[in-house]
Amino acid sequence: MAQRELLYEKISRQIEQQIKSNVLRPNDKLPSLREICTENGVSMNTALQAYFLLEGKGLIESKPQSGYYVSYAYKNILSAPSTSNPVLMYGKEDIEEMIETVSANRLQSRIHFSSGVPALELLPTAKLNKAMIQAIRNLPDNGIGYDHKGNASLKRQIARRSLTWGGSLKEDDIITTAGSMDAISFCMMSLTTRGDTIAVESPIYFGILQLAKSLGLNIIELPTNPATGLEIEALKKALSKKKIKLCLLISNFNNPIGSCMPDEHKKEVVKLLERYNLPLIEDDVYADLYLGNHRPSTCKTYDESGLVMLCNSFSKTLASGYRVGWVAPGQFKDKIMRTKLYHSVSTNALAHEAISHFLENDRYDTHLRKLRRTLQSNLQQYLRCISEYFPAGTRVSQPQGGFLLWIELNKKANALELYDKAILNKISISPGTIYTLQKQYRNCFRLNYGLKWNDKVENSLKLLGKLAHQV
Amino acid sequence: MAQRELLYEKISRQIEQQIKSNVLRPNDKLPSLREICTENGVSMNTALQAYFLLEGKGLIESKPQSGYYVSYAYKNILSAPSTSNPVLMYGKEDIEEMIETVSANRLQSRIHFSSGVPALELLPTAKLNKAMIQAIRNLPDNGIGYDHKGNASLKRQIARRSLTWGGSLKEDDIITTAGSMDAISFCMMSLTTRGDTIAVESPIYFGILQLAKSLGLNIIELPTNPATGLEIEALKKALSKKKIKLCLLISNFNNPIGSCMPDEHKKEVVKLLERYNLPLIEDDVYADLYLGNHRPSTCKTYDESGLVMLCNSFSKTLASGYRVGWVAPGQFKDKIMRTKLYHSVSTNALAHEAISHFLENDRYDTHLRKLRRTLQSNLQQYLRCISEYFPAGTRVSQPQGGFLLWIELNKKANALELYDKAILNKISISPGTIYTLQKQYRNCFRLNYGLKWNDKVENSLKLLGKLAHQV
Repeated sequence: MAQRELLYEKISRQIEQQIKSNVLRPNDKLPSLREICTENGVSMNTALQAYFLLEGKGLIESKPQSGYYVSYAYKNILSAPSTSNPVLMYGKEDIEEMIETVSANRLQSRIHFSSGVPALELLPTAKLNKAMIQAIRNLPDNGIGYDHKGNASLKRQIARRSLTWGGSLKEDDIITTAGSMDAISFCMMSLTTRGDTIAVESPIYFGILQLAKSLGLNIIELPTNPATGLEIEALKKALSKKKIKLCLLISNFNNPIGSCMPDEHKKEVVKLLERYNLPLIEDDVYADLYLGNHRPSTCKTYDESGLVMLCNSFSKTLASGYRVGWVAPGQFKDKIMRTKLYHSVSTNALAHEAISHFLENDRYDTHLRKLRRTLQSNLQQYLRCISEYFPAGTRVSQPQGGFLLWIELNKKANALELYDKAILNKISISPGTIYTLQKQYRNCFRLNYGLKWNDKVENSLKLLGKLAHQV
Repeated sequence: MAQRELLYEKISRQIEQQIKSNVLRPNDKLPSLREICTENGVSMNTALQAYFLLEGKGLIESKPQSGYYVSYAYKNILSAPSTSNPVLMYGKEDIEEMIETVSANRLQSRIHFSSGVPALELLPTAKLNKAMIQAIRNLPDNGIGYDHKGNASLKRQIARRSLTWGGSLKEDDIITTAGSMDAISFCMMSLTTRGDTIAVESPIYFGILQLAKSLGLNIIELPTNPATGLEIEALKKALSKKKIKLCLLISNFNNPIGSCMPDEHKKEVVKLLERYNLPLIEDDVYADLYLGNHRPSTCKTYDESGLVMLCNSFSKTLASGYRVGWVAPGQFKDKIMRTKLYHSVSTNALAHEAISHFLENDRYDTHLRKLRRTLQSNLQQYLRCISEYFPAGTRVSQPQGGFLLWIELNKKANALELYDKAILNKISISPGTIYTLQKQYRNCFRLNYGLKWNDKVENSLKLLGKLAHQV
């Protein structure tokens, strides 16, 4: 659902373009608010909103008694990381220990750049508390009894929202789960056996590597472009050389590399699935946090044969602790439904009702709009800091959504060393080596930009940049 | 923890013995309350409590203006079902369809004898609602964020309660899970691979058969005595003939057969485990609902080598919809912890906090005492009805705990036919054939006696008995 651009957004976008194209330069004075009103025939309120938006993004600043000035200036030009280049073989690197170290150290650190969720301050806690209390009232048994079949009204809300990605799910097309990894685990267990091979993007969220490894699967990692995602030619090549049982993609705002597959790529992947009768697990947990004008589509959008199992959750946008997720399992519904039943019997009744209640009116969209604005503004701040404080030649992803940045230091730098130095300063980052089973990404790391922006964060990025010069 | 017998319990027990040994017979007049006071040197209140207890069990009844009379009279003598006799091979019967039928039909029925939990009316819903609201207040993040490590105070409460079964768990010995089947699934996945063989009691809860089958395991079902549980000689024989990778037992109040292994048997099983280095999953979800004087021990009680993984939950005693369970995984802790993390990431923060809060003071024990009294009284009512209404020769388990009865009709009777006839009358029972993968238990079925006792239940048992005459 493309959103109509509002007046203040339009004004803001035009000024942003002028800044980015160097028509307006750092320290240039901007038109006064009154001038904006007159030129655009808008109210003072609209003019203010436009400037607030630009200020939020760190593009302009107001000087007392003087007016607004361009503040945006990248010290270094930031280029995107290179397309990843894993080899066509099964990686065997042991990542367990490092993952456990990162997870244990995070608890001791002050600044959680390694976190996999937005900061709690950015989530609608008070409203969720109310929804939970309402859930106790709503459910006839107060949520005491089993929820074997999955919350019907939650499934209806999810089906309703499928319009936002061009889908047309029905209530009956959805299986609710305790989060997205729960859904992915049911799909993987239902469709593979020990010794099978699956294909994923590289780098990819380490939890998926761990899960697949623990199920005895071989993993092929495929080259991935930081902007457009999976390199489709590489998938074709892999399919021609190996018997691949299952594919898994984070097609929108991949964790960790931030890529978003263009519609045409998604369509092409779906065609490939059909040709090879290859099931796809599509993990879509970041897509509601798009920073552009509309939510991206999914592979599921173009899937007519039911080979795509679309997995999602509310863990990245509302409450990871509630464990509310779902899968639209296409043709594999019966199998996956049974796997869910055997392994977990029932989902948590109250949490699922609470999220369903939260989705019922505008609350979710209002929250998402606000969260996206914050993330957009944070992203600009982070990019400014990286440009300013990090060594020249540092490459960084420019994600169009989500809250994760992928940073590539120069080839010789060691991000594990940076990790160690950062931890000594109680700053946790997520080293690139845990996002692959091959010897890759030693000079890379992942940063969460979904923290609440403040001086502490800016100073931590500054310190991180300083440490990056030493590795 | 053996409980000290209270005065009213003692008086009640003595009268019960006289009734059961036929010293007191149906319609005999009992001593008046005043006589009880004088004879036993107790208060009127104590005398009343003793008679209330007997009344609750259906053993005596008060006649207005006249006094108390013995009402207890079994029309037919009820013997226990025979020890089960499965063969030493891998069963291949398909039980899926019947299980799905039972589950779908239950929703349409009026009387849920096939249910696997006590009736909601017997659970402390209002207090759980309060505990849930308190949980929202207690947790620093209101339960919004991940609970990766498991709720520490819940683990402490579970450790504290391990004294009740002769254990001495520490907080650190426990992994929290989303219910007991979640725990069992993590244990099974951690310790077996496709093609391995596991040994279980027969009959056994169908969910365990389904889970093991879906993981590609071969299942050996072992002869089980309705009173003392697993026949240990049969386990020895199986161990000498087959490579068994894992054993699973419901040692206390087995679902469905109701057996409870004596301490000596548990000790012997643990010795066998050690000799064969054989891990045991012990599913203990019914044990808190003992009807005797104290909670039974577990195999874990005698386990010094850490081979026993004790799985439990609060689904049968408090709230199945909360999904709160745990495992004390012994020597397999690291493995099982990782499996949990890979498949589910985190447990539900609020539900686990709510149960922890509920366990903090006497509430849980008070509730259990009340629930056990109700179940004890229900059990007597059910046995009376079965004796009165079912065909002579009907055998029935005499469980010392839990809320499930196992009924064996005569050899030629068909419980599936009874199932069909019952469903036509909107009564759901659970046919014996779904508790095995072999051709067994065609003349058996399971009844839940954890319903709220009333005329509707009595009439349904009466009707069921009438139908049983026809099959």
